[in-house]
Amino acid sequence: MTFLYRADPVRGAVWAELLARKMPDLPFRIWPDIGDPREVRYLAAWQPPEDLAARFPNLEVLFSTGAGTDQFDFSVIPGSLPVVRMVESGIINGMVEYATLGVLSAHRDWRTYSGQQREGDWKVHRVHPASSRRVGVLGLGVLGRAVLDSVRRFGFPCAGWSRSPRQIDGVECHAGADGLGQFLARTDILICLLPLTDSTRGILSKPLFDQLPQGATVINVGRGGHLMQEDLLQALDQGQLGGAVLDVCEPEPLPPGHPFWTHPKVVLTPHIASMTQPETAVDAVVDNIRRHREGLPMTGLVDRASGY
Amino acid sequence: MTFLYRADPVRGAVWAELLARKMPDLPFRIWPDIGDPREVRYLAAWQPPEDLAARFPNLEVLFSTGAGTDQFDFSVIPGSLPVVRMVESGIINGMVEYATLGVLSAHRDWRTYSGQQREGDWKVHRVHPASSRRVGVLGLGVLGRAVLDSVRRFGFPCAGWSRSPRQIDGVECHAGADGLGQFLARTDILICLLPLTDSTRGILSKPLFDQLPQGATVINVGRGGHLMQEDLLQALDQGQLGGAVLDVCEPEPLPPGHPFWTHPKVVLTPHIASMTQPETAVDAVVDNIRRHREGLPMTGLVDRASGY
Repeated sequence: MTFLYRADPVRGAVWAELLARKMPDLPFRIWPDIGDPREVRYLAAWQPPEDLAARFPNLEVLFSTGAGTDQFDFSVIPGSLPVVRMVESGIINGMVEYATLGVLSAHRDWRTYSGQQREGDWKVHRVHPASSRRVGVLGLGVLGRAVLDSVRRFGFPCAGWSRSPRQIDGVECHAGADGLGQFLARTDILICLLPLTDSTRGILSKPLFDQLPQGATVINVGRGGHLMQEDLLQALDQGQLGGAVLDVCEPEPLPPGHPFWTHPKVVLTPHIASMTQPETAVDAVVDNIRRHREGLPMTGLVDRASGY
Repeated sequence: MTFLYRADPVRGAVWAELLARKMPDLPFRIWPDIGDPREVRYLAAWQPPEDLAARFPNLEVLFSTGAGTDQFDFSVIPGSLPVVRMVESGIINGMVEYATLGVLSAHRDWRTYSGQQREGDWKVHRVHPASSRRVGVLGLGVLGRAVLDSVRRFGFPCAGWSRSPRQIDGVECHAGADGLGQFLARTDILICLLPLTDSTRGILSKPLFDQLPQGATVINVGRGGHLMQEDLLQALDQGQLGGAVLDVCEPEPLPPGHPFWTHPKVVLTPHIASMTQPETAVDAVVDNIRRHREGLPMTGLVDRASGY
């Protein structure tokens, strides 16, 4: 019985050390040193190999090393194989930090002041109370709920939107296609934390931007595929949107010369909002292996029908 | 009996409206329309006039419209006149937002990524867990404690330093000259929220910077007079400090051509961290007038010996 790791090898070495300590009975191997493929029961991968099913006939669980599984080609993954997203505190904490930073920087005109510093301009803008700045989160999974919990403490009126109805203390919850318009109309700072699926691809587009209050800010920490780039540029240039904070793009890295690099209303970071932290990721994997062996539901198990 | 206001007249008009609603029996006047000076019992001012004592013989309370009173010349204020700092939720919330933004931006390399965006450079830096980034606050008054309460929720190990010993749940508290070294040695991100007094002027200087871990960040949201500017520039250029976030300077506005405007490791904002919000400021003043009339201690009463 082997645990096989197929992602960044530097991080793999940290996984090896941590797993050896926490599950000493479970042999650990780093791709391409796979050993006897029939022994491989667990595979942790950013992207599994295309011949997954034929090569590892006894595979029991496929773990994504990332928070999402949109990078997986599900057509080559047997329908009976459990696929598990990474749900671990390192990813959650990183996302909470980044999204809170994005909200506070929009709220407190950080980009404007940064421009003024470069111009040598000492000009004061009014401070608006948090109670007048409405934050909305698209996607109410583990990450969306954790972000709302952080942002709420500053006094921003908070709302969330999800495909199916949810209830969260202190958060105005909207759901489904019917609830989207009402959610957007009251959202000054919008955070996208949706999974990337066929139904969410391109959701950040002109029709959505047009339903936000004029001057709203969009923070995309979902996936680059959520965003229609031309629509965003147009909404920024026409003043419908006041700013955008983008941590994800399509493709990544963003090509040289792309307008996002230099747009005065765009803050761009290279997909660093949140990263799997080996220490906490291995804890999550160990916990899920125990659950799997005991027949308990694993945390982050992907529903193939919904895609997350 | 009159309430006299001597600060920004635009805000004064808002004060007038709010006070008329909350204390309709108390006539309100805005400087220089002082009416009969013998009727003035309460004065709210950013800076009181020099002939305060002679001009207003029946003055009962002097309110500062700011969080500090370092802008007051106490030599012209009668020792028997109660002086009250502004303690109101608007100031507190603004400071919590700005300081949290400063901490998160230092923690998540926001200045570095902003420079990379301008250069068109898609380069990822490691995300360090908050548990490895130690935050320390100089000054444990209302603002310092509120900032610690916000920052602590992200998982940063937090400490505070004050002149006399304090106890705060979840915060490692140091006090006095003897405790300063130990506090600085464990502080990666230092926030100055001290009052400006004879004993704190120039405290942010080479001897203090030298006691911080190499690469530390300094956030000054106290007063410009706390900082020895040349010492900061030297510490940044020699690598002892990794960055600085400065909301206050001496003088303000910062003169054109000053090195802070263009220094790559300095984030500069024009004293906007926190502003008195008329709505909540008037509530605080009304509450203190009631307390004064009933012989109860006023919130924010300044101790003339300590200077705050």
